[in-house]
This record gives sequence, C-alpha cells and structure tokens, in this order.
Amino acid sequence: MANKLREAWKSGRKTVNGWLAIPHAFPAEVMAQAGFDSLTVDMQHGVQDYLSAVACFQGMQPHGVTPMVRVPWNEPGIVGKVLDAGAMGVICPMVNTREQAEQLVSYCRYPPQGARSFGPIRAGIYGEAGTYWQTANDDVLVIPMIETRQALDNLEAILDVPGIDGVYVGPSDLGLSLGLPPLQDREEPQILEIYGRILHETKKRGQVAGLHTMSGKYTKRMHEMGFAFGTIMNDSGLMLTAARAQIAAARGG
Amino acid sequence: MANKLREAWKSGRKTVNGWLAIPHAFPAEVMAQAGFDSLTVDMQHGVQDYLSAVACFQGMQPHGVTPMVRVPWNEPGIVGKVLDAGAMGVICPMVNTREQAEQLVSYCRYPPQGARSFGPIRAGIYGEAGTYWQTANDDVLVIPMIETRQALDNLEAILDVPGIDGVYVGPSDLGLSLGLPPLQDREEPQILEIYGRILHETKKRGQVAGLHTMSGKYTKRMHEMGFAFGTIMNDSGLMLTAARAQIAAARGG
Amino acid sequence: MANKLREAWKSGRKTVNGWLAIPHAFPAEVMAQAGFDSLTVDMQHGVQDYLSAVACFQGMQPHGVTPMVRVPWNEPGIVGKVLDAGAMGVICPMVNTREQAEQLVSYCRYPPQGARSFGPIRAGIYGEAGTYWQTANDDVLVIPMIETRQALDNLEAILDVPGIDGVYVGPSDLGLSLGLPPLQDREEPQILEIYGRILHETKKRGQVAGLHTMSGKYTKRMHEMGFAFGTIMNDSGLMLTAARAQIAAARGG
Amino acid sequence: MANKLREAWKSGRKTVNGWLAIPHAFPAEVMAQAGFDSLTVDMQHGVQDYLSAVACFQGMQPHGVTPMVRVPWNEPGIVGKVLDAGAMGVICPMVNTREQAEQLVSYCRYPPQGARSFGPIRAGIYGEAGTYWQTANDDVLVIPMIETRQALDNLEAILDVPGIDGVYVGPSDLGLSLGLPPLQDREEPQILEIYGRILHETKKRGQVAGLHTMSGKYTKRMHEMGFAFGTIMNDSGLMLTAARAQIAAARGG
Amino acid sequence: MANKLREAWKSGRKTVNGWLAIPHAFPAEVMAQAGFDSLTVDMQHGVQDYLSAVACFQGMQPHGVTPMVRVPWNEPGIVGKVLDAGAMGVICPMVNTREQAEQLVSYCRYPPQGARSFGPIRAGIYGEAGTYWQTANDDVLVIPMIETRQALDNLEAILDVPGIDGVYVGPSDLGLSLGLPPLQDREEPQILEIYGRILHETKKRGQVAGLHTMSGKYTKRMHEMGFAFGTIMNDSGLMLTAARAQIAAARGG
Amino acid sequence: MANKLREAWKSGRKTVNGWLAIPHAFPAEVMAQAGFDSLTVDMQHGVQDYLSAVACFQGMQPHGVTPMVRVPWNEPGIVGKVLDAGAMGVICPMVNTREQAEQLVSYCRYPPQGARSFGPIRAGIYGEAGTYWQTANDDVLVIPMIETRQALDNLEAILDVPGIDGVYVGPSDLGLSLGLPPLQDREEPQILEIYGRILHETKKRGQVAGLHTMSGKYTKRMHEMGFAFGTIMNDSGLMLTAARAQIAAARGG
Repeated sequence: MANKLREAWKSGRKTVNGWLAIPHAFPAEVMAQAGFDSLTVDMQHGVQDYLSAVACFQGMQPHGVTPMVRVPWNEPGIVGKVLDAGAMGVICPMVNTREQAEQLVSYCRYPPQGARSFGPIRAGIYGEAGTYWQTANDDVLVIPMIETRQALDNLEAILDVPGIDGVYVGPSDLGLSLGLPPLQDREEPQILEIYGRILHETKKRGQVAGLHTMSGKYTKRMHEMGFAFGTIMNDSGLMLTAARAQIAAARGG
Repeated sequence: MANKLREAWKSGRKTVNGWLAIPHAFPAEVMAQAGFDSLTVDMQHGVQDYLSAVACFQGMQPHGVTPMVRVPWNEPGIVGKVLDAGAMGVICPMVNTREQAEQLVSYCRYPPQGARSFGPIRAGIYGEAGTYWQTANDDVLVIPMIETRQALDNLEAILDVPGIDGVYVGPSDLGLSLGLPPLQDREEPQILEIYGRILHETKKRGQVAGLHTMSGKYTKRMHEMGFAFGTIMNDSGLMLTAARAQIAAARGG
Repeated sequence: MANKLREAWKSGRKTVNGWLAIPHAFPAEVMAQAGFDSLTVDMQHGVQDYLSAVACFQGMQPHGVTPMVRVPWNEPGIVGKVLDAGAMGVICPMVNTREQAEQLVSYCRYPPQGARSFGPIRAGIYGEAGTYWQTANDDVLVIPMIETRQALDNLEAILDVPGIDGVYVGPSDLGLSLGLPPLQDREEPQILEIYGRILHETKKRGQVAGLHTMSGKYTKRMHEMGFAFGTIMNDSGLMLTAARAQIAAARGG
Repeated sequence: MANKLREAWKSGRKTVNGWLAIPHAFPAEVMAQAGFDSLTVDMQHGVQDYLSAVACFQGMQPHGVTPMVRVPWNEPGIVGKVLDAGAMGVICPMVNTREQAEQLVSYCRYPPQGARSFGPIRAGIYGEAGTYWQTANDDVLVIPMIETRQALDNLEAILDVPGIDGVYVGPSDLGLSLGLPPLQDREEPQILEIYGRILHETKKRGQVAGLHTMSGKYTKRMHEMGFAFGTIMNDSGLMLTAARAQIAAARGG
Repeated sequence: MANKLREAWKSGRKTVNGWLAIPHAFPAEVMAQAGFDSLTVDMQHGVQDYLSAVACFQGMQPHGVTPMVRVPWNEPGIVGKVLDAGAMGVICPMVNTREQAEQLVSYCRYPPQGARSFGPIRAGIYGEAGTYWQTANDDVLVIPMIETRQALDNLEAILDVPGIDGVYVGPSDLGLSLGLPPLQDREEPQILEIYGRILHETKKRGQVAGLHTMSGKYTKRMHEMGFAFGTIMNDSGLMLTAARAQIAAARGG
Repeated sequence: MANKLREAWKSGRKTVNGWLAIPHAFPAEVMAQAGFDSLTVDMQHGVQDYLSAVACFQGMQPHGVTPMVRVPWNEPGIVGKVLDAGAMGVICPMVNTREQAEQLVSYCRYPPQGARSFGPIRAGIYGEAGTYWQTANDDVLVIPMIETRQALDNLEAILDVPGIDGVYVGPSDLGLSLGLPPLQDREEPQILEIYGRILHETKKRGQVAGLHTMSGKYTKRMHEMGFAFGTIMNDSGLMLTAARAQIAAARGG
C-alpha cells in the first residue's frame, strides 16, 4: 500500500501528526477520527509497549490515518516488531552518528538494502500479502531524531545514509543537549537557526523534516518555515488541556 | 473517610464531575490532575468494565478526587463490586419506579439499611479498615438516574425512598423518552421545566441533583439554576474536541 | 450504516457467519479476512467478555464484515453495552417465552419501540454520529435463540413479538432439552422436522433463521433447506481441526 | 473428571481451600503449589472478573488443585460462564430462599436436572470432551452461601432443594445480618450454635458445610467441629500478613 | 525436568513443532491439545511479548508439550526472561557469526558455561525447585537461526561454539538474503543443497536441525531428509486456512 | 520530589525494601500498605514488563512508598522508560565493568551528566511538572548490581564512576559466579568478607549498599553489618510461605 504521507509530501502538502501516549485502542480510534494525517505511537516517552502499539494500530486502521511508531531505542528487535505490526514509518530517538543511522536503516529495510527479517504478520494486511516485501522498502519511512549537539555535528553524515527519508526534531532534548531548558515551541534564535540548517540540508537531499509542537498554531508556523510535518502535543495532553479549560469555564468567574 | 462531595454540597459548594470512558489507569490519572472534584467511571456507555474501573480508581487515588461509578444496570453483583473497589458513589441508570430505587439502596447499604455484602477489598483503604463498615452507609452516595417519562411520573416516590442521596439527569435518554432527539445541553422550555421540578423536589428533601453536560459553560449555567454538580463531556470527548481545534489551527486559514 | 446482512437476506443471498471464542483483536482480524459475511463474538460459551468483544470489533472493522454478539444472557446491561460497542446484531440464548422476547427487543430498541439507553460510544462510528439513533432501530438485528422444548412450545408467540428479526437455533441445547445428546450437525428426523417448522414460521413473518454448524458442508445443506445463515464452528475449533490434520500429515503413515 | 473434593469428603477427609483475590494467573499458580486441596476465585469481593478467573484456572490447572469460583451473584450468565471455563464448584452468595436455591441449581445442571446451556469450552478439557455433559451434573459442586437471618429461617427449605451439595458460611455477612460486627473466626455462642445447626442439617442430608476463616488454626478447629472444608484468608491477605511480620523482624526490637 | 525434545531426538524420533502468534493463553491451550511435541511462542514475528509468552506457557503446561520461544533478537534481557518463565528452548533469529553464537550461549547457560543470571521464577516449577540450576544447562535447548548468506559463510564456526544444540532454518529470510523471494516450503535445488549441508554439519557434531514449513506434508518430507523437527505454519495461519476452506464449502459450487 | 530513601540513608536510617514479581497493580497496593520504605518492581526475574511496572507504580503511589525498578538489563530504552514512568531508583543487573557503569549512569541522568532523553510522562507527577528535569539528576538513585567475580575485580572502578549512588548485591548470582550454589542469606566466610569489602568501599565514597534476603531476620543482621537497605523475599514468595504455614496449621498434627 502506498504511504499517504510520502505522497502528500511529494505533492508539497504539509501534514499534521498526532501522538499516542495512552496504551489502548479506544483512544486511538477516537484520535484517528479527529483529522490527523498520521498518528504515531510513542513507545519512548508514552505509556506504550509493543502490544499496546498493536492495539492502537487496530484502532486507527479503519480510519485511513497513516500508522507510525516512535521506537524506544535504536534496537533491531523492536524496530522489526513494529514494522511487522504495520507501522508505515519509524521515528527513532537519539540517532547521533552515521553508524547509528546506518543501523536504523538496516533494521527497517529488507535485503539487499538492509537486514530486516521477513514476517509482516499485520503489515501484510496493508499491501497485498504476497507483494508487501516488494514494496515495503519504498513505502516505510525511516526518520531518525536529531536532538543532540552530537547529531548536529554529524547532521550531513546522518542525512547522507541511503534509506533515510527525513528527520524529526525533538526540541526538548535538543535544548537540554545545548544547555537550555527542555521546552517545546522554542523561539530562541539559536534554535531557529538550527531548524533552518536542518531544513536546508534535508531539502537539498529530497528529504523531509518534522518536529514536535505543543499547538496547532506553532505547527502551522513550522509548516510555513518549511517543515513537512508537525506533531501536536499528544492524546493525554490534549485531554488535560481541554479538561482544564472546561473546568475553568464551569467554575468560572 | 468522609465523602468530599457530600461535604461540598452541605456547605453549598457546587462541584464539577469528570467522566471516564477510556478503560485505562493512565488517562484516569491525567484526568485526576485536571481539577475535577469527582471522576465517574462510566460502565454503562463508556468502554469500561469492572477491572478497568479498578484501574481507573488506582490512577485517580493519589490525586484526591472522589471516585464514582455509573453502573451498567441496577444489578446487585456489579453494584457490590464497584463499592468494594472503592466507589464513593453509585450513579444508576434507568431507575423508573419506587421498587427499583429501593433495590438500588438495598444493594448499596449494609444491614440493617440494606443488604450489601461485606468485603470492601479496596474500599477499606479509604477509611480505617476496621471502621469502613460503620461509616460506609453514611458516606457512599446513592444516585439514581431520572431519564424517562416513567421516572418523572414516579419522581416523588423514588425520592422518598430512604437512602437516596440525589438524582442524576440523563438529558439524551430523557429526550428520547419524551419523543425528542437525544441531545445534551438542552434548551427546550419543556425540559427546563422538568429540571426545575427535579430541583424543587430534591431540595425539599435535602437531596441533590446533577446532570450531564457538554461544556463548562452549560455546567456553570446549571450550577446557577440549582444543580449541585454537572459532568463535562467525557475523557475521549475532551480529547477529540481539543484535537479537532488544534488541527484546524494547524491547517488553518 | 446499513446492515449488510439484512440487505443480503432481503436479496435472497445466504450468508456465512464466523464465531469468535478467542478474546483478542488479532485472531479477530485474521478471521475477518477469511471471507465470512459476519463474525459473532460469543460471550456466552466463548472465552470472551465485554472488553474482549470491543477488541474483536476493532480487529474486524477495517475488513467490512458485519459485527455481531451472542450475549451471555438476556440481561439489559450487557445487551446495551455490546450495541454501544458497535454490534449490528444480538443473538440471545435461551429465549423461551413471549415475555423474554419482549424484554430482549426492549433492550435493543430505542424508544418508543423499546427502552435502550442512548450512548453509542463506538456504534456512532458506523453511521453518521448524529443519525445513528435514527437508524439503529431499523439496522440492528434482534435474534433470540430457539433451543429448548419450551421455546418450541412458544415459537409463534416469540416470533410475533414486534422487533424480532429472526431466530438462531442451538442444536446442542435443543437436543439436551429434548432428551438427546448435545450434538451439532444433527440428522435426526425429529430435529429436521423442527427445523422445517422454524423455517416455515419465520418465512411466513418475513423473518430469518440461522443455526450453528460444524462444517461448511452442513452449512451449505442448511442454506439449501432454507436457513438464511449458518455459523461454521468457531475460531479455536477451526485452528484445532486444522492443526490435527497437519500433524497427522507430518507424522503420517 | 471426578471431583477430588467430592471424593475427599466422601471418604471423610477434611479439605483446605484457598481464596484468590488477585486477578492474575501467576499468583494462582503459586497458590496452587502451596498445598491447598481447592482454590476458589472470588468474583464477588475479590478483584476478579470472568477473564481473570479463566487465567487463574489456567495457572492452577497443572498442579491438580480443584478449581472453584465464588460468583458475584446468583445470575445465570456468569454461573454458566465459569462452569464452561472449568469450575468444578460454584459458591453462590446470598442464597436466602428456596426459590433462589432452585434457580442456582438450575443454572448449574444440564437438563433434565436444570437449564444449563451446553458449551463447556474449557471444562471439556477436564473430562473426556465427549462425555463431560454426561458427568458434569454429578461432578460440579453447587454450594449456596448461608449468610443472612433470612437464609437461616429458610435453611431446611434451601437444603431440601435437589442438587444442593452443601453450604458455605460467610461469617462477616452473617454477623451483620444479625446485628453483630462483620468479623471472621467468630466465637460468639450464638454463632457457634448456628454453625452447629447448619452442620446438623447438612449432615442429615449427606451434604457438606464449609466456611471462611482467617487462619489455619481456626480452620482446624472448624474441621474438628464438623465442617468439611475451611478457607484460609486469601492470597493478598496472606501476602500482607507475611510482609508485615517480616518487616517487623527486619526493623525489630 | 528432562527435555522431552532432547530425548526424542536422541532416540531418533522426529518431532512436530507448533508456532504461536496469538498473544493469549486460550489458543495456546487449544494448540497444546492438538498433538504437537513442542510449541514455540514467536516473539519475533508473532503478535507476542513477554507477558503473552508467559500466558501461553501457562496455557500449554498441563498438556505436556515442550515450551519454546523464538526471541525477538539476540539480547540478554529477553533471553533471560523467557528462560526464567520456563522456556525449555530458545530459537534466536539472525545469528550470523561465531561471536553472536557465543553471546547467545552465554545468555542461556549458568556459569561457568555462560553468564545467565539466576532467578527461574516459573522455570523452577518444571524441575524440582532446588535443582533447576543444576540441570538447566543440560536441558535448555540453544538453537540459533541460520537464515542469511553470512550465517552460511560462518556455519561451521557457529556450530563449533560449545553449547549450541542445533540450528533452525528460516526459509523466507534465507531466500531474501540470497536474492530470492521470501517463500517457505522451497524447492530450489540451491536451497535444498544448503539444507543438505546444514544437515551434514549438524549431524557430524551431534546437533539437530529444524525448519519452518507451511504444511504437515512438507514437514514430513523434511523429516525424511534428516531434519529433526519441523514447524507447521502458525496458530493464526492454521485458523485462516481452515476458515477459508470451510467457507468455500459453504458457498460452494 | 525529594527521594525519601536518600533522605533516610543520609540520616543514618536503614530501610526495608519489598520486591514485586506479580504483574498487577492490586498486589502492589497491598504491599505498599505493609510498611516497606520502598518497593522495587523486578523486571529481570519477576513476571513483569513495562506496562505492569507502570500499573504497580500506580498501585503504590497513594501510599508514600518509594518506587524503584530492577531493569531486565543495562539497556537505554527500558531504563529511560521506567524513569519516565516514575521510578525513583534503578537497580541494574550484571554491571561488571567501569564502562557498563558509565553507560548506566548515562541512561539515568539528563545532560550534561548523562544522555537521558526528556519526557517524564508519569515522573513529572512526583515533582512539580516544570521542575522535574532540574531535580531528577539529584533524586534518582543509580544502583548497579555487584554479582559476579568480574564485578568484584572491578569494584573500585565501578564505584568511582560519578553518578553511582550505591550497589546492590545479588547473592545467588554472586555465588554461581564464584562456583558456589545460588543461595540467599549466605553464611560462607568468603561471602561475608566480600560483603565487608563492598561495605567498606561504598562507605568510603559516601555510597550505600543493599542486598537481597529471604527474611526480615537476615535483613536486620545485614542492617547491623552496615547495609543501608535489604530486600525481603518478594510478593509471591511471602504469599507462598504464609500459605504453606497456614495449611500446615490447618491440617496439623
């Protein structure tokens, strides 16, 4: 099955990504009807594991949203498992060197491009079962996170690894690594300059860049700056923010 | 342990209730930090069962919010189980007759007021274990739902049943029963008049009335009309509404 | 959303039903790709409960198969919950009297046809959310099981209850009730005569009849006899039978 | 499969029962290796539901202990489900009248003795699959709880119902019903006299009596008084008591 | 406890292995009654994680089938956990070098043969608790997968690692690595020649070879070729195949 | 939030640790009320995974006990996840070299002390959400296990790694590594001498030492020897021991 995100980006359309921290299929199917282009199960900082990621995928599948995962770490076992489960893209934290980027690609691509093991138990659902292995290398998105000073130092080397489709910026970790507080929706010129460099280098290579945000407004601004996709907060954060606003209105002055 | 809702209402303070449809402890602990006075696990229309209700209670307990349940039906097995799990109040759907109200009270109260069976496996946590049985009859809230024409016909008889602490209005079912669409946040004069009658009859007996709403704003209005508590939407609804608003901002015009 | 089973039967097409005993979404999505018209989560004799039924529904939803439930008993709480979860049909065991049939209809239909409570938390997904309440009474199938001597005695009275769409025959229980062994795929003339009577009475009223079988072959025969649908074994039974056959071939002589 | 408890009691051997409140297979398999004759999943006051009961049965099965359930209520749906899951005995709370005892028997016995529905999805494992239906009525224990003044008033009528194998005493509820505190391991002469009457009436009819206790010591005393079996606390209570004793030793004086 | 597979192979008996992809104890206990010699929980490509593997082990334990796991990757944490859970054998994917084989052995063997950490929380059940540590190194099967060109290049070096009991062939990955489609039940002379070499080298060292197949028929052929064991498809695949065949018969021509 | 263990140890108070092997929140909340200072979810040898650890944390949180985890292995993905979930300390098995100790610290500390990634989804609950990142490096305990001959050889090098708060002794593995049986509560002079050396070296550096024991009595003795904390058995072990003692009393002679 063609990857809708890939198609959108090719056509120049910016996309909006949702982020799932709640380990259950029901909130995933609710989020899948909100209008996101893609939903990413956050197995790193979200309250998620492999089976909850599968459940989230099952919840979102009827609604046509592109299923993605942020894996907990650059480890072949879990990367293979989420791809077999049907992830159309893998966002991987803390890819700081060319070698780490090569490993990530290797975990995500079937031979000869990589060393992924064959057994797409749910992923075969998306394509025609017999042809998934022929199209997966072209469809699955491989997206390392750029979120440390070391990664910035190695940015070009990382992007030059064949099979890398783009990068995802983690503003909190990037800040911490640079001696700044772990914030999102950053406005420091130093950071915006880094974003500009990342956009320049990825664009040059026909790759995309995405980042995490805390609002639709900031996502829009980043779209305009050149990011292909932005993530808005996460499921539990949206719920909490909305609850607080409604409670304030109920009690309200 | 004293029931904080009961105390709030005695002192004339209106309360705001949250509603849990997602069967997991994590969103429950998020909701429990939003500022609600109470959280009700919706076992009737929510995606909840007994063990998910227990998990939600575990999630909310550290945060001091009063745990409640809407049971799926007026059935002694499940009413006893959720009370043992620590519910400080039971909202029961479709209580339409005096006899049904008497049954509900009987399921919620230890002898001699009722026929609840002893074994407060988690509820004992809330009080001192050895005294829970002495205070539970006074602490636990018994709240039948008034949501049909038949219940309105029998309103006084239902409220007269000893042990009833108040009522909860289900606007959708009430509407359907009266030949109207199943809406919330209703404005029909016919409905508002019914609300007025319910408020009058409960106030006369020292009881409270609560109802379901879709917004803090309408909850506030109902507080002002005399309702002791209002529920704002539910967890997944808050999430969906917030997601849609943020996506619109991201794409936006 | 229109009920595809209803449409098939109206057009004279016989359907094949699958039966889910394994409480997990993954085997449900596998079964949903096998070619069944409908899949029924067996909450009576299967290893299923409410949340596993929801998971099975999530697994089958992308694949267009009609989701049904056999409830554990004719009890309003669980009937309401599975309908809210998205069941397009309810098969209810041990409906032996007109009064029990009336109760079942009442649990399945919104007012004024019945007393179902409004809150289609997942079912709203299937139709347009705002119109589900207007179409559900016409779409949802209400199918009592005829499986005792008493039910046969009351057959016409049961079928005459407005809102009954058809009946489901449980051959094992029917046998036990008549003093015969609890078998499926029965050949006793006494039983086949009963089947004929059931087919005659349902057809007369524009209703359908279905039954449980242990094979496609017997289902086919029953289709030809006039049954609108037949169930083939269940998920775990199919697995066990196939495993035994393959093991025999592996060891084999 | 022959019920080992039944055999033990026939031969005059007293048995010790364990009680499972923790909803997981792992502690069940631990308890199953401790030396109990039987283990009862407490679905009434334990933190248990149907699927956790199934898991507990799976955990205990390899270890030869007899699996039992205390159901949450005298309701046909859940009684049928736990028997299908493999329970060799059903302890049912709050059986207060002859009619309630008849209903309980009817839910537990296949025709013509009762109205149990056929489908022993796990229970068939214990016997030879094809013969379970022929032996289950003789093997499965039906044990109503005697725990209210009303039940004592109706004791002989309850015991006279064909199919009742014995009774189980709930000392806490019995106390509450008689205006006493909800204690276990009771010593009031009034209570011991009741125990004596229950033992006399059950013995007269070839039935057994069991009761809940808080210690092996009290169980032993009750064995000597004539009870066929006693339950010792429950899994979580044993754990808590042991933990407190060890902590005291660690900190200790 | 002695490993029954090891004993069978020593006596020259070929064995049939089942493969579990469904993460639940119930289908595991069904499969455990089908007649397999061993059942392997597939944590790599199956929809399985650690706790579902434990559940599957609990389901299969009463039925005497030998429990195995295919781990997701050659990683010490998960290898240790599944052995503690009671796995009597570990099949490990993508063992391509001598060093990787040495690591695998080290994770599976207690000192001095390896570096496995002690704590057989469920495995102690199988042997006598106090002696498990003395027999585990001899009982547990360590079976690397040979499924890449690199592994074939290093075959002798891998097999020479002390503690390796045999190998498992993954026909799909082997094909992909060699530039062929990812098929099972292969007939290419090139592949059969490789099988011959693997059989020759393992036999020479007193080791075994097994492989994955899609049918009992092909398993039988491989038995005859010299493989000690063959796996037949998996649980969900058996179910799907059987369902399709029965549906075809039901609709059928 | 300040770490209560750290405070206790600073003030010279010895602490008692509980150990959770049962993967459920309910036994965790029971254990949390027994009087332990801290509870450690054992993800290495316990029947635990990430989501069960989260559930255990939710169960223990209201009761003020300090939540800890023993991770399955020294792997950055899982270390980060349990810290985000709210662990106030990480016990890590098999830390045998300075480099492994440095890796562990790096996984547990935010930059610049380490490379932990920011996203404390539950941990933020414990401190004020906005300040957790500022205090976590000082609050979270990093405790490698010393349990092999190699670790003893490298003891000083391991302890010299900045960020190491203390060590945890695994008596079974230590024994196996030294050619002794895998026992707890050891009395061999050779072992006690090792304990003395560990106590000496940690004390010199202002660090603590803890160890696993099988009883409060031995924990007390180790407290007196100088260990800052001792673990008593685990949840399921306490339950089993207590059950056996009570059964013996019930049957008893």
